[in-house]
Amino acid sequence: MQEVSIGLLGLGTVGSGVIQILQQNASDIQNRCQTRIKVSKVLVRNLNAPRNIQGDFTLTDQVEDILADPQIHVVVEAMGGIEPARTYILEAFKNGKNVVTANKDLLAIHGHELLDAAKEAGKDLLFEASVAGGIPIIAALKQSLAGNKITEVLGIINGTTNYILTAMTEQGRDYQEVLEEAQMLGYAEADPSADVDGLDAARKLAILSSIAFNSRVTVNDVYVEGISKITAEDIAYARELDSTIKLLAVAKSQADGIEVRVHPAILPNTHPLASVNGVFNAIYLVGDAVGETMFYGRGAGSLPTGSAVVSDIIQVVRNLNTHSTANINCTCYNELPIKSEQDFKSAFYIRLRVKDEPRVLATLALLFAEASVSFASIIQKQKKRHEAEIVLVTHPSQESQLREALDSVRAYGKVLSIQNVIRFESGELNDE
Amino acid sequence: MQEVSIGLLGLGTVGSGVIQILQQNASDIQNRCQTRIKVSKVLVRNLNAPRNIQGDFTLTDQVEDILADPQIHVVVEAMGGIEPARTYILEAFKNGKNVVTANKDLLAIHGHELLDAAKEAGKDLLFEASVAGGIPIIAALKQSLAGNKITEVLGIINGTTNYILTAMTEQGRDYQEVLEEAQMLGYAEADPSADVDGLDAARKLAILSSIAFNSRVTVNDVYVEGISKITAEDIAYARELDSTIKLLAVAKSQADGIEVRVHPAILPNTHPLASVNGVFNAIYLVGDAVGETMFYGRGAGSLPTGSAVVSDIIQVVRNLNTHSTANINCTCYNELPIKSEQDFKSAFYIRLRVKDEPRVLATLALLFAEASVSFASIIQKQKKRHEAEIVLVTHPSQESQLREALDSVRAYGKVLSIQNVIRFESGELNDE
Repeated sequence: MQEVSIGLLGLGTVGSGVIQILQQNASDIQNRCQTRIKVSKVLVRNLNAPRNIQGDFTLTDQVEDILADPQIHVVVEAMGGIEPARTYILEAFKNGKNVVTANKDLLAIHGHELLDAAKEAGKDLLFEASVAGGIPIIAALKQSLAGNKITEVLGIINGTTNYILTAMTEQGRDYQEVLEEAQMLGYAEADPSADVDGLDAARKLAILSSIAFNSRVTVNDVYVEGISKITAEDIAYARELDSTIKLLAVAKSQADGIEVRVHPAILPNTHPLASVNGVFNAIYLVGDAVGETMFYGRGAGSLPTGSAVVSDIIQVVRNLNTHSTANINCTCYNELPIKSEQDFKSAFYIRLRVKDEPRVLATLALLFAEASVSFASIIQKQKKRHEAEIVLVTHPSQESQLREALDSVRAYGKVLSIQNVIRFESGELNDE
Repeated sequence: MQEVSIGLLGLGTVGSGVIQILQQNASDIQNRCQTRIKVSKVLVRNLNAPRNIQGDFTLTDQVEDILADPQIHVVVEAMGGIEPARTYILEAFKNGKNVVTANKDLLAIHGHELLDAAKEAGKDLLFEASVAGGIPIIAALKQSLAGNKITEVLGIINGTTNYILTAMTEQGRDYQEVLEEAQMLGYAEADPSADVDGLDAARKLAILSSIAFNSRVTVNDVYVEGISKITAEDIAYARELDSTIKLLAVAKSQADGIEVRVHPAILPNTHPLASVNGVFNAIYLVGDAVGETMFYGRGAGSLPTGSAVVSDIIQVVRNLNTHSTANINCTCYNELPIKSEQDFKSAFYIRLRVKDEPRVLATLALLFAEASVSFASIIQKQKKRHEAEIVLVTHPSQESQLREALDSVRAYGKVLSIQNVIRFESGELNDE
């Protein structure tokens, strides 16, 4: 085709980025897919709002202007949210259009329905931008690593929490203080809960793990813990352990099912993810053929996210030119069980306050041993007169066993409090 | 198609890896491309040599058995070397076959000819495995980052040299000693020159930069320096500068042309590439939309390289199923000038032995200033009586100016010797 017309739904951060990239790299993009790509219509809420971006396109506040336009071959959904985005995308397929979306919220819940609709219509549904902004992780999983059985995905896929944890680590400051600063600087929203409670990362992990393991995972399957419980003390102890604390999205495929979880985790500094700082994202994967691999870049922002959307548009255009749309749609041919929390297996960091008396540590070791949990390392510090702080790092243990151990510890009179329990992603289980 | 037959040329490290992956992940691969992929014939030099790998394929020592077999749709070239690989691939296209190759030596010289032949035949020529083993960098450049203007590619793309430099850095040992150990362990070849002199990296960089900048670059265009001049002293000074020494493949696209060079470089430890150690490879890219991004993984080995070959095979099969082979072939639509050495611009580390007398440093500063080269940092140490060692790190300078400065320095009677000159990849030019 000489020219392909795009209908863009939404002119916020992502939509503006898409237009800017298509404008500034127009001639390269045309050369790369032998076709001029033109945004012809843009759906906005308010036609009269001031805009930073201009171009040869028509603004409309009527979605039918786009969905019913026979000249438009590709609909780019950059509105976000569940509805009306879901309805618009389904209608786009009914009208024979291909769809590119950046909408993780929608895909993490209704991904399967949308992919089914795309398949039925024989059209493309591409969504590289929905996970980790400009990092091409969806294409890597669907295509470049398609010869592999993926066994493990570890991701830093939320920029806000990584910014906060990086600032806490570098400056020794406390969570609440850094969060407030991040809000002032615009790195965290006024209501930061979707980020700091881990829900945003859980949505992205649902999408990633569905593709990695070829089995349907929705956001409701993901176990989630946020970062608000992390203190400057924990970060200082992590440093003593040559480690750092990250909000980690973890997906593992094992003989008895898939483990999908988002939670703060202590990572050894030797792990490639440990040095991913600030607003950067990264996804670390293990495949049975490729081994360890990592993809790193900006996980958000107008141009990085726009980069992913535009690459998807180019892919659709190449498919249109060769009459091969819908050549890869849903790849969830497995139905793997999702493991429940008590069957997770990982190492743990446990910080306790205890009475500083003889034989307390020995008793603790015994209580853990009774639940089959053993220690990899121990730090003990005098805190005040008659009071000590103990940090225990366990060997990888079943979560149910750890809870049993913690129940006994809680009942032990010499323990004043369990200050924190954080998973320790030692990588030990996966060592060759 | 229900089944696609592969003809494999070569059953060495890469060929065996390809067969192993296709066997162990057969059912996943079939699900992912809706087609059974079967290696039907394998070209070997000696039919009677003992083999570690077995399967439902026929060994042959006659290439025509494969190239003339109408049942074979995809030829996988895993022989290496220029000839006869080039002739076999050209004949495969003439016979209507698609080709997947891992052959960097061939592509870095004859890539354009082969891509032209593929285009004429309307067939695919895919070569993900030719650069950085299992890391999907070719697909990223051709597809996932296709909306970007790539301005910079920095790569650690030779595992042997990275292993040697990492061991020198971690153990404080000297080049020759570590090289010999690497040879004993099989990480370096008996004749290590292609690796340690930078030629292997230069071949991969020619392929990478052709695709990144959409302009033809061959291995002969690449400026190359190897690592044999790096000493334990240089590595110790790099550490004092919070930096590390890597064999870096550098490609930059600037208004006046492309810079392509392979040489040892000092990198600040804050750079994402600085912590890529041992046999791992990584490619760091800057695109105008995506910003900084990095791809990390194993750059060699039977299974990682096999992973890339198999993903290419799956791509060809998907294209066969949708009648869309040859949807992306040569993308060199630009003809950008290649800059010559004296126009390169970078910062430099210069290590000098001087007479320990008053005003020597002042005179040196003056000599550099006359050539318009200024210093970013200086280390001076007493070495023995009347002799000092000075390490100068310059601001980014034109290479021709640096040489002019070094000529004056060499002529200056108080300078006993110029111990080493190493480029310093400060990233300063690219800072936002």
